[in-house]
Amino acid sequence: MIQALLFDVFGTVVDWRSGISKDFELISKKYKINKNSKQFADDWRGEYQPSMEKVRSGNREFVKLDILHDENLKNISKNYGLDFISKEDWDWLVKSWHRLPGWKDSSKGLLRLKSKFIIASQSNGNIELILNMSKKSKLYWDMILGSEVVGYYKPQPEAYLVACEKVGLDPSQCMMVAAHNNDLSAARQVGMKTAFVLRSNEHGINQRSDLKPLESWDYVANDFFDLADKLGCETEVILNGF
Amino acid sequence: MIQALLFDVFGTVVDWRSGISKDFELISKKYKINKNSKQFADDWRGEYQPSMEKVRSGNREFVKLDILHDENLKNISKNYGLDFISKEDWDWLVKSWHRLPGWKDSSKGLLRLKSKFIIASQSNGNIELILNMSKKSKLYWDMILGSEVVGYYKPQPEAYLVACEKVGLDPSQCMMVAAHNNDLSAARQVGMKTAFVLRSNEHGINQRSDLKPLESWDYVANDFFDLADKLGCETEVILNGF
Repeated sequence: MIQALLFDVFGTVVDWRSGISKDFELISKKYKINKNSKQFADDWRGEYQPSMEKVRSGNREFVKLDILHDENLKNISKNYGLDFISKEDWDWLVKSWHRLPGWKDSSKGLLRLKSKFIIASQSNGNIELILNMSKKSKLYWDMILGSEVVGYYKPQPEAYLVACEKVGLDPSQCMMVAAHNNDLSAARQVGMKTAFVLRSNEHGINQRSDLKPLESWDYVANDFFDLADKLGCETEVILNGF
Repeated sequence: MIQALLFDVFGTVVDWRSGISKDFELISKKYKINKNSKQFADDWRGEYQPSMEKVRSGNREFVKLDILHDENLKNISKNYGLDFISKEDWDWLVKSWHRLPGWKDSSKGLLRLKSKFIIASQSNGNIELILNMSKKSKLYWDMILGSEVVGYYKPQPEAYLVACEKVGLDPSQCMMVAAHNNDLSAARQVGMKTAFVLRSNEHGINQRSDLKPLESWDYVANDFFDLADKLGCETEVILNGF
């Protein structure tokens, strides 16, 4: 029986593309930079997998994602006129990932799911990043797991296995929830249950990937409300004041 | 400015003595054991500090508290007629620490504090233990920190320092909240702020320790509501359904 839901965060719970491009626009205004902010978000995110790959392959010791985000921003900074912004503005931009907005169903959807299951983030983001983002976007996890707690980056099998071990459950009692087929595929390979949640606008209106389930996942849902319905969760959760 | 509150859990947030003795009484009834259940709780808890000391001193590699609780129960099992209970009942009893009840102000008090601050457990308990306990006793942390995440047992200075680092804050921006003067003293030594919460019945009606603050802590409170008042938190938090 499924007891815990582990969530991918970037793209599945929060809208990184809108968040990053919005903050880049604020910096652009200040420094009179005239570049496409969506492309900026895509390019910065484009550095994400290669930077983690060095850690996954063992060519680099584990470092938390905030550090990779900083290095990755340096890699593209010249193309976006960011070489001469102040250190304060640079650090603020690196932490844009700490301020990403949830999709419109995320906060209440997670609460509905929380009423029946343990819910934990299982992101490649580090603790501070997910904590700040969750506080801002009202994501009420029971636990923040992820790369910094488990010591591995997804989709390494250990990332999933150690997460299940930390919550004291067998992989078959845990379900990975993600908008990305490859994340679910890796989770399934270690014995976890799988739920695909469609986020058709993660990459903007021209998105071509992850528009449909590529395997027969245990659950397929249009958003977190739909997933909560399918998992038999409470339909209404009232909260106030926090 | 204080941004995060880190909480001791056993004794400060939950009433371990009542929880453990209640579960021992259930086992006692089943196996017709006739022993003092409060004394049982005290004796089991009495093994706690010495067992961790082996890890703190470097004589033993870090192991999570569930394992120490199991070993510590073995140490006292003969005195309490527990040598012949079933494996299933033994494991259930070891996990009694996962089911400890909160003090009557804990759940709502934490919610009030959460409305203004990051709140995280910083217990010597392992993740699974604190997670299960929190789910059962409605303790809505922003983050579960503690020995298994930071790799040290309190009161080692690293236990506090790594916890602050994980949430991305300077120790001076974090306040340790505890019912134990020695915990606060160690936290103060690494630069954290300190709040003493009186739990005059942690050790029962004859409690002699921690009945008053032994240093001039930054805050002294009678319970979490009192602490929330003193920290200027919202007075009412409504929640429902989770």
